[in-house]
Amino acid sequence: MLGDLTGDEIEQLLRREAIGRIGCSAEGRIYVVPIMYAYDGECIYAHSADGLKIRTMRANPSVCFEVEQIIDPAHWSSVIAWGTYEELSGADEDRAGTLLVARFGPMATSATALKRPRIRGVAQEASRTTLFRLRLSKKTGRFER
Amino acid sequence: MLGDLTGDEIEQLLRREAIGRIGCSAEGRIYVVPIMYAYDGECIYAHSADGLKIRTMRANPSVCFEVEQIIDPAHWSSVIAWGTYEELSGADEDRAGTLLVARFGPMATSATALKRPRIRGVAQEASRTTLFRLRLSKKTGRFER
Repeated sequence: MLGDLTGDEIEQLLRREAIGRIGCSAEGRIYVVPIMYAYDGECIYAHSADGLKIRTMRANPSVCFEVEQIIDPAHWSSVIAWGTYEELSGADEDRAGTLLVARFGPMATSATALKRPRIRGVAQEASRTTLFRLRLSKKTGRFER
Repeated sequence: MLGDLTGDEIEQLLRREAIGRIGCSAEGRIYVVPIMYAYDGECIYAHSADGLKIRTMRANPSVCFEVEQIIDPAHWSSVIAWGTYEELSGADEDRAGTLLVARFGPMATSATALKRPRIRGVAQEASRTTLFRLRLSKKTGRFER
């Protein structure tokens, strides 16, 4: 059966999953990138090395965000949401770091490390990390089971 | 270490994975949707119930395609590719059905079933299935490990 997820099911999927994809677009080029994220019920929090993804969202902050749980072709759920890119600083940046560390535990870099280059001598685009959130304004969900 | 995947590594990831995401855009709205796919070295083959995804790609056939393998935040690979949406008919449609059945085996619907509604009495948008391919023109790959 195909159908729409309820509002509660959409929230559960967003909270349960840890990997999603941002769709962003600028100057006629679409860009889909995976991110590891934390969700607080309103916003998606993530960090990224400065690069094409960050440049694209700065140029056009209207983004799509997708999360899925696929068991097989006939059993899956997915959430597609839309929202606005917001770059974080100060207390917001600290809060995002705390959320990400809480979400990913010992696998994550520390909240402090998130703000600093973790790896020396790599391409320049990886030399600065940006913490950001996507403020979701519309969420849809579909399932087949 | 962060780095770029080689051409061979990009091809291997595209052949190994089975779930990817299409990023498409029309009338200023970006749309990211997961698909189960087969890859023949040139094109991504998939099928979908007619709906927003198909309408969007018909309106603007320039799409992004993303595949990833994420073990943890410090061990991942991803491919981001760009290409053109092509709707299939005739022999191309048969070939796509054969590729998808070969890829997904007993989990997949049959090549014949792919062309027909599998589920009766669901929303009208699921009442017709379209087979399509994305002809990839540019592929990039990144890793951290």
